[in-house]
Amino acid sequence: MSNTARKLRFTKMHGAGNDFIVLNGIDQDLSSITTEQWKQLAHRQFGIGADQILLVEKATRPDADFRYRIFNADGGEVEQCGNGSRCFVRYVQDHGLSNKNPLRVEVAHTILTLLSHEDGQVEVNMGAPIFEPSRIPFNPAGLPSKQDFHETVYALAVSNNPGHHDDWISVVSMGNPHAVQVVVDVESAPVLAEGPLIESHPAFPNRVNAGYMQIMNRHEIKLRVFERGAGETLACGTGACAAVVAGIRRGMLDSPALVHTRGGDLTIGWGGIHNNVCEPVIMTGPAITVFEGETDFPA
Amino acid sequence: MSNTARKLRFTKMHGAGNDFIVLNGIDQDLSSITTEQWKQLAHRQFGIGADQILLVEKATRPDADFRYRIFNADGGEVEQCGNGSRCFVRYVQDHGLSNKNPLRVEVAHTILTLLSHEDGQVEVNMGAPIFEPSRIPFNPAGLPSKQDFHETVYALAVSNNPGHHDDWISVVSMGNPHAVQVVVDVESAPVLAEGPLIESHPAFPNRVNAGYMQIMNRHEIKLRVFERGAGETLACGTGACAAVVAGIRRGMLDSPALVHTRGGDLTIGWGGIHNNVCEPVIMTGPAITVFEGETDFPA
Repeated sequence: MSNTARKLRFTKMHGAGNDFIVLNGIDQDLSSITTEQWKQLAHRQFGIGADQILLVEKATRPDADFRYRIFNADGGEVEQCGNGSRCFVRYVQDHGLSNKNPLRVEVAHTILTLLSHEDGQVEVNMGAPIFEPSRIPFNPAGLPSKQDFHETVYALAVSNNPGHHDDWISVVSMGNPHAVQVVVDVESAPVLAEGPLIESHPAFPNRVNAGYMQIMNRHEIKLRVFERGAGETLACGTGACAAVVAGIRRGMLDSPALVHTRGGDLTIGWGGIHNNVCEPVIMTGPAITVFEGETDFPA
Repeated sequence: MSNTARKLRFTKMHGAGNDFIVLNGIDQDLSSITTEQWKQLAHRQFGIGADQILLVEKATRPDADFRYRIFNADGGEVEQCGNGSRCFVRYVQDHGLSNKNPLRVEVAHTILTLLSHEDGQVEVNMGAPIFEPSRIPFNPAGLPSKQDFHETVYALAVSNNPGHHDDWISVVSMGNPHAVQVVVDVESAPVLAEGPLIESHPAFPNRVNAGYMQIMNRHEIKLRVFERGAGETLACGTGACAAVVAGIRRGMLDSPALVHTRGGDLTIGWGGIHNNVCEPVIMTGPAITVFEGETDFPA
């Protein structure tokens, strides 16, 4: 690296194994960075490496403290990420940008309210789950189904080993679609073999995230998720929300529930549906700073 | 990160897409770091992320300028890495630790001589290739074979599509075993489907790296390598050496040859065998600093 080149300062963080490059776009002018350069920064060998990049900016509306934007590893801008919002809060606190708590932040066209706990965990309102098939989107026509407590579950018949697990799938959207099933043992569940078949099952026009949960007790599950377009990941925040909501609807779980993922633990609370009003899902989890760095500004 | 914690300074580099955390063990005391902590540092979500870690130390013998040690992402110490030695040279120069050129460096029980070129490329003597089956190790008993110019080539019969490529395999060790074949088009070669079958073919008691090369002209190839225990990687330095040596022995290439990999270009020179003396392979390639960083010392 030349000593005269313009430098880009960044922080590398993770939330339950979902990892982020966080950039301060308030005291650094990052407006010229292109899609190709975001992609380069996120590359794990040629760049800093991350699942996503968070760009912290000044708020554009008076009811928000900050704005942030999210760029995927492919360079495209996306709208939401629960694990990323926890890292945003920790970043703002650690870098002395604000001491407000909760923080109100503008993400895409939404305002998120983010609450930092004394133990360092961060609480995020993830919005209400969606069950209407057309809004997920999910086309159940022709699929075997049954009622299980408050939930209608479906059989996709993608398993080569139907004796291995409970084949019935709950379908729920947390802004993105999830197909969640209960398994006896999450470690031996056929996540890698069967996940791609569920992901691209014709009942899901926009594909789907495939979740596998093992019920430990009424307040605790183990979860693995095969993420749409990404394969199995260390932790999927919306997947944890979808799994707990499905477990509560099927009468197997009570709120709140601790979700053990390969990347760390998340706590999911959900108040259910009362008088036709669906409560939002509250996710609480860790946000860890891994390192601070400086690189040449993308050429 | 607490401001009072002891900090670890590091540099992230790559050589043709093979990426390294480089640590100065001369002005930082890193003697207490355990296998588990090396593994943690190399983790791509929870740590800095890298294929390997290079620890730069003072030489322990008078004929060397420095010593370095190499730790794999699984935390274990290993003996050799051509792409890493180029990054070592660039690190020493950029951080002002020495202005000697060439540098003599102690790696495991060997002294490597590393020459920096004016264009920033670094030249490494990779040692002589090994062809004796017992030293590779390779057990050719029962395999069809034929003589191709100076090389005996073998048929492993692992391909489901024998019409797709030249099934004849050259076997050579560069300290680690390689099985190299020539293909018409490296992009469509069955690297991911067939590589694992070659890697674990019973003729290779310690398994093998599977290389696929497309001959562009007598001084240029395209190469993909399915690495033993790692799967397909962006660039394999010893794989590039093995491929060019095999191509020269089969009469298809002349030294030096430019090797295009997915991670970047390497130039391989080899003088052949004269009076029963096998010349060493010389590899020249890039070494890129990606960023400088600081993290909490491993807990």
